[in-house]
Amino acid sequence: MKQIVECVANFSEGRRDDVVTRLIEAIETEIGVIVLDHSQDFDHNRCVISYAGPPQPVCEAAFKAIKLASELIDLTRHEGVHPRVGAADVIPLIPVHGVSLEECALLAQKLGQRVAAELDLPVYLYEAAARRPDRTNLAEIRKGGYETLKRAIETDPARQPDYGPSHIGPAGAVVIGARRALIAFNLFLSTDDVNIARHIATKIRASDGGLPAVKALGLYVGGQAQVSINLTDYQVTPLYRVVEAVTAEAAAAGVRISHGELIGLIPQDAVFAVAGHALYLPELSAERVLEPALLQKIGFAFEA
Amino acid sequence: MKQIVECVANFSEGRRDDVVTRLIEAIETEIGVIVLDHSQDFDHNRCVISYAGPPQPVCEAAFKAIKLASELIDLTRHEGVHPRVGAADVIPLIPVHGVSLEECALLAQKLGQRVAAELDLPVYLYEAAARRPDRTNLAEIRKGGYETLKRAIETDPARQPDYGPSHIGPAGAVVIGARRALIAFNLFLSTDDVNIARHIATKIRASDGGLPAVKALGLYVGGQAQVSINLTDYQVTPLYRVVEAVTAEAAAAGVRISHGELIGLIPQDAVFAVAGHALYLPELSAERVLEPALLQKIGFAFEA
Repeated sequence: MKQIVECVANFSEGRRDDVVTRLIEAIETEIGVIVLDHSQDFDHNRCVISYAGPPQPVCEAAFKAIKLASELIDLTRHEGVHPRVGAADVIPLIPVHGVSLEECALLAQKLGQRVAAELDLPVYLYEAAARRPDRTNLAEIRKGGYETLKRAIETDPARQPDYGPSHIGPAGAVVIGARRALIAFNLFLSTDDVNIARHIATKIRASDGGLPAVKALGLYVGGQAQVSINLTDYQVTPLYRVVEAVTAEAAAAGVRISHGELIGLIPQDAVFAVAGHALYLPELSAERVLEPALLQKIGFAFEA
Repeated sequence: MKQIVECVANFSEGRRDDVVTRLIEAIETEIGVIVLDHSQDFDHNRCVISYAGPPQPVCEAAFKAIKLASELIDLTRHEGVHPRVGAADVIPLIPVHGVSLEECALLAQKLGQRVAAELDLPVYLYEAAARRPDRTNLAEIRKGGYETLKRAIETDPARQPDYGPSHIGPAGAVVIGARRALIAFNLFLSTDDVNIARHIATKIRASDGGLPAVKALGLYVGGQAQVSINLTDYQVTPLYRVVEAVTAEAAAAGVRISHGELIGLIPQDAVFAVAGHALYLPELSAERVLEPALLQKIGFAFEA
């Protein structure tokens, strides 16, 4: 495996298990592709399938899953607390080993062209794959969700897709991009008051002057208030700083963190940084951890 | 690499760099062996060389290093704050992959017999390799250090070696054994008062009613008080509990932890447990961490 790309595919289905299973099957039957993790959630009504492999099989699997999702998921009847614009909602390609972010951006653009041409779906390119500066931010593309985009795509020039038709059907649009590994991490609070979670989210997120590289929303999930966090660059803001900030804000609001939830997978060096901080070993890295150190020395190294 | 054994070899030399370098060279020139890490310390006057490989090369490298240490290090002129009985002081074999603790114990016994026969050194077997129940605890074997053992080995039947002569020369004795991965971890305090470190050590160590699987000493190192910790089973007592306990005892004594120090390497799952605790993800394990999850799925797994 000389080149490894990860895809963290987000689909707007978290309630019908058979649909989620069929999406996973569409991905894992592609030879060379390994499904690493999947999670689904009733309230978000959303599933996330993380998989990895060489570039071509990863893109082929993404195409098959986008096609299947567009056939099985109807956004006109979709309810969920998470922002979304499509059945296959967000498809990011992430460099893991022997491949650059720029190469992943090119792969994403090629995949987007194919989705538009063969499936007749509007495609938006985001982050490193964006072809317009206002498309680097996923939240801008998804603003107002499916319901708003359905009207705006036909009338607002700013919301024209990068590829595909300027009209939207029950499968919605597909947002395809390339980015570095992000950490999707939720912290549940010891309260059902979603306003506290929303308040904490505004305190910690970059867009409101909080921590750099942090996106956050306050949500109501499973009867509990949840701070839903995306850390887009854990080298800029270490994950432990995010947890410390939420812990402090929760205490100030008179609640506490009841438990965490990791969506998808977390990069190894982000975990080592968290542990290193807790152990007063700020330099802790793979070289000092038995298994990865041994792998590195025998020449089996994952590059960042 | 079907079977991987780690050896964390402790030698009573931390001041003469050329001697440490020669010991490392003696180990790493053995084909199949990989030196993972080494550390040395002036005050302890001790070095620790961690290396791994298949069982036979690991034992061969250990033998060569024991021989070299016995030629180069003179315990009659050795000073250091750490307990020690020999030039090659402690040689534990640790199962890493595809090998059991029992197999490591047999390897240790064979190595011990060879050291006694070919180098004419007294050998004590400890922990899983011990042939007497009073030898499972390393501290019992090293009680009183070289100076006490030098007399006792000739007079006290309880201190007869498992193999080799009942008299001790300048190279001292060699303690050889097998054990599970241990975490050697020091916490420096914001004080030069070694009595505070000693007090904290008595509070946290198992032998004084503290945390199970924790050994601790209070030492004076580099002008600072240090709590020197061996965690012999991080599944019984997670490492974060040890750090929490030292933090609390330090606060009670009016000092704080200034920094940590890891000796040798730390097993991956111990790191994941520390990070999982900090992130409110108590179940965090290799399956949820990108690089090891990918390795597991492609069939490259390290077994515990």
